[in-house]
Amino acid sequence: MDKIQFLSVIILSFFLIECKGFKPTQDNLITPSEVVDPATNPTTPDKIALGKMLFFDPRLSGSNWISCATCHNPSLGWSDGLSKGLGHGMLKLGRNSPTIINASFGALQFWDGRAPSLEEQAKGPIQSPGEMNQNPEELVQELKKIPAYVDLFHKTFPKEGLTFDNIANAIASFERTIVSKNSPFDKWRSGDATAVSDSAKRGFDLFNSKAKCILCHQGFNFSDNGFHNIGLKEEEGVIDVGRFEHLPIKVLKGAFKTPTLRDITLSGPYMHNGMYNNLEEIVEHYDRGGDNKENLSPNISPLGLSEEEKKDLVAFMKTLTGDPITVLVPRLPQ
Amino acid sequence: MDKIQFLSVIILSFFLIECKGFKPTQDNLITPSEVVDPATNPTTPDKIALGKMLFFDPRLSGSNWISCATCHNPSLGWSDGLSKGLGHGMLKLGRNSPTIINASFGALQFWDGRAPSLEEQAKGPIQSPGEMNQNPEELVQELKKIPAYVDLFHKTFPKEGLTFDNIANAIASFERTIVSKNSPFDKWRSGDATAVSDSAKRGFDLFNSKAKCILCHQGFNFSDNGFHNIGLKEEEGVIDVGRFEHLPIKVLKGAFKTPTLRDITLSGPYMHNGMYNNLEEIVEHYDRGGDNKENLSPNISPLGLSEEEKKDLVAFMKTLTGDPITVLVPRLPQ
Repeated sequence: MDKIQFLSVIILSFFLIECKGFKPTQDNLITPSEVVDPATNPTTPDKIALGKMLFFDPRLSGSNWISCATCHNPSLGWSDGLSKGLGHGMLKLGRNSPTIINASFGALQFWDGRAPSLEEQAKGPIQSPGEMNQNPEELVQELKKIPAYVDLFHKTFPKEGLTFDNIANAIASFERTIVSKNSPFDKWRSGDATAVSDSAKRGFDLFNSKAKCILCHQGFNFSDNGFHNIGLKEEEGVIDVGRFEHLPIKVLKGAFKTPTLRDITLSGPYMHNGMYNNLEEIVEHYDRGGDNKENLSPNISPLGLSEEEKKDLVAFMKTLTGDPITVLVPRLPQ
Repeated sequence: MDKIQFLSVIILSFFLIECKGFKPTQDNLITPSEVVDPATNPTTPDKIALGKMLFFDPRLSGSNWISCATCHNPSLGWSDGLSKGLGHGMLKLGRNSPTIINASFGALQFWDGRAPSLEEQAKGPIQSPGEMNQNPEELVQELKKIPAYVDLFHKTFPKEGLTFDNIANAIASFERTIVSKNSPFDKWRSGDATAVSDSAKRGFDLFNSKAKCILCHQGFNFSDNGFHNIGLKEEEGVIDVGRFEHLPIKVLKGAFKTPTLRDITLSGPYMHNGMYNNLEEIVEHYDRGGDNKENLSPNISPLGLSEEEKKDLVAFMKTLTGDPITVLVPRLPQ
């Protein structure tokens, strides 16, 4: 994605947030065959291979025990199966661990959009005292003691070699390969009328009309890359202002990033606070128009869905799960 | 392995421990093509597939965050790369996490041999409060809430279905597939004279003679499955009696299981207390005849190796690393 495209997405996101009653159409619904990489970090096979090793390497953490894959576990939809993540010392974090699947199509990263790219995102949890608790300079020194890594970094990044920036660059390149593909939904949209059930087809119609999901979950990635307050309850005593912390505009108070719905069956529990365990609970949430009405997005209001319509919506969402993303566990250098 | 074979190994192990100057020959050096499974838990493809899922599933732990693969990480030689393991709450454990590689050829499991089989071993860390901190009954109830697991257990174990015993049975069956194969050493012993260096060949001769390694590291798995006190220092204040805790015979005080040397380059740090980071340090330890002389095995005494001989021994050990054991990360049911 070049800068102009990037800025367009940002501007469009903000536009959407405040544009009541906006009615986009669902076109371009098939996942593009290639992920667009940034000019500052073009994808190469070497970067992907190195990034994969780093993603699985617990030595990236201060304890040498937590890897990116611990909380973004390929076995659990590239998330962790927990309502809220755990970090260093196994202490509970404030939010749900987002999936890596299709993160490559996101604009701003994290639930609150505080990172402008996958490269910047990757640097966050590594350094966060509550997550991987690592010092970047110590990490570079530690990895420099592993000759195979030094060689791989020099081969992959001939100019700078092993640096913290390049650790993040390689991880981001690997993450760009984690894409949901070939779902029953895609097969249906590509012409195979039998790929999904009639219930799912009705669900997709509802998704685009009565249920209003499309107002935020748009395009092939089923996300507008925007931030919305959808009226979620927080745990007793918890105040999480979400995007507002980084961009203090009233409409963003309590607003969180619209997650992709691709592979959504794999990455529960759901929502920034992990409060829902299944898709049925999410449909109920939207059907009642949310719970916390303070600063609620105008997109959210009671839907009056029938029980059958709720089932149809869930049936549709289940068609968005693609083929298993095959990952061979890398052998890490000693 | 049937009962008679099993007992023979045990008896032989004890015999070896006390038999000064025993000189076995190194025959049967190629890994057998099949791992022998116990009559009580015959290996089936279904068991292997289910056991693999369970091995990678953090929901086996009380926190739902630690899987078998956390400490027996396929990326790090099926160990964790730490001197001593971490467990629940990220608190340090008392010993180094042993590799799963070739554990199938072991008789007694754990550094202190307290489990008589892989099946019994698998139940230990799951329940240990300091490790996975799980209650077996709660675990079964938790997994019973996951329909795909219920189905898989019924298909795999038609009689009992989902039980704690069958969780362990499936994991053990998977572990029996984790075998080091096709190392340069194997290629050399199978007739390819160019598969290893001359230094490694000299190292193998030393291994079987002057360096006395063969006294404990015997056969294709380079382990006698016995327990020996090799004179390791412990950390300040630590007393670890090893095998003696479970079988209080004087010769076993401070004795630990002879680990396999297969894939040994992958699973450092080494020794039950993880005190050595590389093979060179291990050779130095044996060359000086150990450090702690209390109850030292009669097999251990200063070796008087030259610097070249030490290098040759290390070169030989490095030839024992087999082909990467390929593991596709399983997709776990929600």
